[in-house]
Amino acid sequence: MSLNFRDATLADLPAIIAMLADDVNSAGREDPSLPLDPRYEAAFADIDASADQRLIVAELDGAMIGTMQLTFIPGIAFRGAWRGQIEAVRIASNVRGGGHGTAMIEWAVEQCRARGCRMVQLMSMTSRADAHRFYEKMGWVRSHYGFKLKLED
Amino acid sequence: MSLNFRDATLADLPAIIAMLADDVNSAGREDPSLPLDPRYEAAFADIDASADQRLIVAELDGAMIGTMQLTFIPGIAFRGAWRGQIEAVRIASNVRGGGHGTAMIEWAVEQCRARGCRMVQLMSMTSRADAHRFYEKMGWVRSHYGFKLKLED
Repeated sequence: MSLNFRDATLADLPAIIAMLADDVNSAGREDPSLPLDPRYEAAFADIDASADQRLIVAELDGAMIGTMQLTFIPGIAFRGAWRGQIEAVRIASNVRGGGHGTAMIEWAVEQCRARGCRMVQLMSMTSRADAHRFYEKMGWVRSHYGFKLKLED
Repeated sequence: MSLNFRDATLADLPAIIAMLADDVNSAGREDPSLPLDPRYEAAFADIDASADQRLIVAELDGAMIGTMQLTFIPGIAFRGAWRGQIEAVRIASNVRGGGHGTAMIEWAVEQCRARGCRMVQLMSMTSRADAHRFYEKMGWVRSHYGFKLKLED
């Protein structure tokens, strides 16, 4: 089996949104129906236009089985360290447990390293104990709480 | 008393670093000595060059009493929502408890709203119970854990 990672194209967007929607915590907040809500395409264009944003798809033997977004953030702290950030991580439910998530996160970390980042960070919902074990097994440290403030629904 | 917020200039950098260093959790990792470590100036230039990064200083009657960094991140999730992110928040120890932190975070949220963000997020060390109460009092929800992975020391 061949697992590959690449930057998403506009043609990948419906499958990415379907993957985001296929999750107990986010089903209600996404709308994968076609034609796509134009806000999705606008967001894709914003990501695509930024050198510090990458929307990624993982393909197993040519079929999309995962997605995530990488963000590269310059900062003053830690003597001027860039940090990588991983958001919106999904692995298709039918291939979970096969190590593809681990491979995807490890690939993301290498991308951050190649960009000169001195740390990588992410947030995971407090209820997702399995995700926490997954990240801790890879050496990530659960040192923070993540706070969110919604500005509109 | 007059509290103002503005984008930082290069001339503010030593005072910002001193403020970052004046913290039990980050004293050892910053070096506020002059001349500055050139990596700080490089990081400032990277922030200054990005339309999605803002390094902010808070001034009370003209004296710097706070700093934070705002990052604006486009994303596919939540129907293509931009999100704001707040990092590296500090209020000078000698003016804490005066409501300036609340004013600074409220100002940050308004900046995110003005940029069209539909949510704002931040991470706070799990040990900082006072900070958690501070954010929750302002309506933030502690829904996530924040994970970090250091790539080098």
